[in-house]
Amino acid sequence: MAIAEKMTTFMTQSSWIRRMFEEGLELKARFGEDNVFDFSLGNPNLPPPAEFHAAMKEVVESDQRGMHGYMPNAGFEETRRAVASYLEKTQGIHISWKQVVMACGAAGGLNVVFKTLLDPGDEVIIPTPFFAEYRFYVDNMGGVARFVPTRPDFSLDLDAIEAAVSGRTRAILVNSPNNPTGKIYDTSSIGELAVLLERKSGELNRDIYLVADEPYRDIVYDGREVPSILASYRNSITATSYSKSLSIPGERIGFIAVNPEASDAGLILDGIALATRILGFVNAPGLMQRVVARLQGTKVALDDYRRKRDLLCDGLQDIGYDVVRPEGAFYLFLKSLMEDDVAFVQELQRKNILTVPGSGFAGPGYIRVAYCVDDSTIMNAMKGFREVFDELEKPR
Amino acid sequence: MAIAEKMTTFMTQSSWIRRMFEEGLELKARFGEDNVFDFSLGNPNLPPPAEFHAAMKEVVESDQRGMHGYMPNAGFEETRRAVASYLEKTQGIHISWKQVVMACGAAGGLNVVFKTLLDPGDEVIIPTPFFAEYRFYVDNMGGVARFVPTRPDFSLDLDAIEAAVSGRTRAILVNSPNNPTGKIYDTSSIGELAVLLERKSGELNRDIYLVADEPYRDIVYDGREVPSILASYRNSITATSYSKSLSIPGERIGFIAVNPEASDAGLILDGIALATRILGFVNAPGLMQRVVARLQGTKVALDDYRRKRDLLCDGLQDIGYDVVRPEGAFYLFLKSLMEDDVAFVQELQRKNILTVPGSGFAGPGYIRVAYCVDDSTIMNAMKGFREVFDELEKPR
Repeated sequence: MAIAEKMTTFMTQSSWIRRMFEEGLELKARFGEDNVFDFSLGNPNLPPPAEFHAAMKEVVESDQRGMHGYMPNAGFEETRRAVASYLEKTQGIHISWKQVVMACGAAGGLNVVFKTLLDPGDEVIIPTPFFAEYRFYVDNMGGVARFVPTRPDFSLDLDAIEAAVSGRTRAILVNSPNNPTGKIYDTSSIGELAVLLERKSGELNRDIYLVADEPYRDIVYDGREVPSILASYRNSITATSYSKSLSIPGERIGFIAVNPEASDAGLILDGIALATRILGFVNAPGLMQRVVARLQGTKVALDDYRRKRDLLCDGLQDIGYDVVRPEGAFYLFLKSLMEDDVAFVQELQRKNILTVPGSGFAGPGYIRVAYCVDDSTIMNAMKGFREVFDELEKPR
Repeated sequence: MAIAEKMTTFMTQSSWIRRMFEEGLELKARFGEDNVFDFSLGNPNLPPPAEFHAAMKEVVESDQRGMHGYMPNAGFEETRRAVASYLEKTQGIHISWKQVVMACGAAGGLNVVFKTLLDPGDEVIIPTPFFAEYRFYVDNMGGVARFVPTRPDFSLDLDAIEAAVSGRTRAILVNSPNNPTGKIYDTSSIGELAVLLERKSGELNRDIYLVADEPYRDIVYDGREVPSILASYRNSITATSYSKSLSIPGERIGFIAVNPEASDAGLILDGIALATRILGFVNAPGLMQRVVARLQGTKVALDDYRRKRDLLCDGLQDIGYDVVRPEGAFYLFLKSLMEDDVAFVQELQRKNILTVPGSGFAGPGYIRVAYCVDDSTIMNAMKGFREVFDELEKPR
């Protein structure tokens, strides 16, 4: 075999998701785009806000010498200052631009953070259900992911986390609002987690970092707020992107922020800059750095996502589905009507409804329905959702 | 220690380069930017061509729905088609858009290629002097770099390469035009290398890939041409970027091209797309993909780099330095006047001339002088170069 064994394994493992994706394409070719209801992808449906386009034009028109050249690996000072100010303002913390490093999206940022923190064999605790890519990010650096289930309502299970901490634990990775569950970890649970990590770090004489992946921080509903990780725990690092808040996931722009009070914060920041370089990112895309510097606090029309959420949740509840309304992000983690969630996804697929089995997120018994789609997709899919419900539930 | 041991080591190792960089900053603060002659960085000095700005404006103005959204990890079909056509036209090869994957610069592309090819312990042969970052790219994937010196004129030493091939060799990485030497590996040496690799692959029953890092392919002088790696050897992969040809290194845009005749080419391409995703690149920045699609064949004003090269080489030769005029890229690899090239760099630094010791590129006894700088920097540095020459050579 010409390619790495591990890559071959990864490709085989992901082949059934791939097969479903390809079957989806086939369905669309056969029945037409409008007759296939694709809830499988987390590709933001809303257009970027008008301010984004204005900022982009401004940046392009103000083009100046060196604007597209190399810069420090951590990014433009102007952008890092804008991010730090916004973090100070919105999260009630003290942080300087030197503690902010621009990243190629949250995916790039997390790889950089783990490259910096993890020695081979170091463990990262990940509450499940979880965004499946995390296991790659940890594995890329020779780390070991330790999965810990959340409670039935998808909140953090502190006892389970405590039991999972070992002498090799280096970090816990939390994602709130969560993909795929839409759960926000509330202030008290983050506070308790901080106390737990502080205590275990002391007992083990080993710093345990709280790493937060926060691309959905701005996508929240019903007046909810996402507690600040940086304000809650000393050894904390956040990685995030503008992919969802500005609907620009193809542009790969985000940042990492390191708590200035963290142990060896300066060393970590130097490591993050070095990791950005040697992993081949070199720096976050320059033009987009200048664009987002102007857009701190700007976000897509949240009301639209809320409307889509309610359209989906109300519709499914009316049919009889057991729905827990997501608090943030744009995913509904829906209880499967069959024990085998893959089979349930296939039932829906027969009605041209594309979703993803919860098993793919270590959340078996559920399916993920991404509602970052046109309203019409949601409304037109209800017939199929009803038919599947009737077929599976009525005979009982 | 809160960060990974390996990262700590990397930071310590690179600390003297860092110290020189910081000393350079200090010099500039003390004597003024204009009185410090900085030849230490490969940051292109020429502005992007006018076509780049026009294309960027066009792309931004033609903004349409989904333009900043996710796309296949390999990139926009439109861009991949433009790249494939250009490769066909200029390199006399047959390649389809499916064999082209857009990358976050050549640094991102090489990481993706090595992630795809290398099992832990697999070896990559690297002719020296070499761009020092390569060792990280190989090490990131658990690979082992095997360094092989080039001949005194910096051409490939085929015997040395053959001697370095082992049962764990998976690839040889060539960089032509070369950083730091400016050498172009000519058609006959690439042809001989291809024959050697084909023969060794047969003997060892193991595919050995020829990976080419080609960001300087378009930066060549005196009518020289860079032989096509893809046309020369079946198991070949190129990774390159527009950083130098368009002077946009901060934008992180480039591509990988896989020879369609390579063993398991389809599997390699699937692997490259997956590696792009799981390493956290996800995709090359979308906006720049659309921009470079319109700029195939466009490049910076080469005559300017040629003039700078000649200004530097003529000036140093007049003083008495032993100069081999570079064939491409924008680096002069200059014979050190002292056995210890670090000491020589420090001598030059006393005259406010910043260069990099060849030792940093596994090329001791030389220093790298990057001439992608203002003409005035070159002219004004000559006084210092002359003084150092006189101090070191006259007493003999």
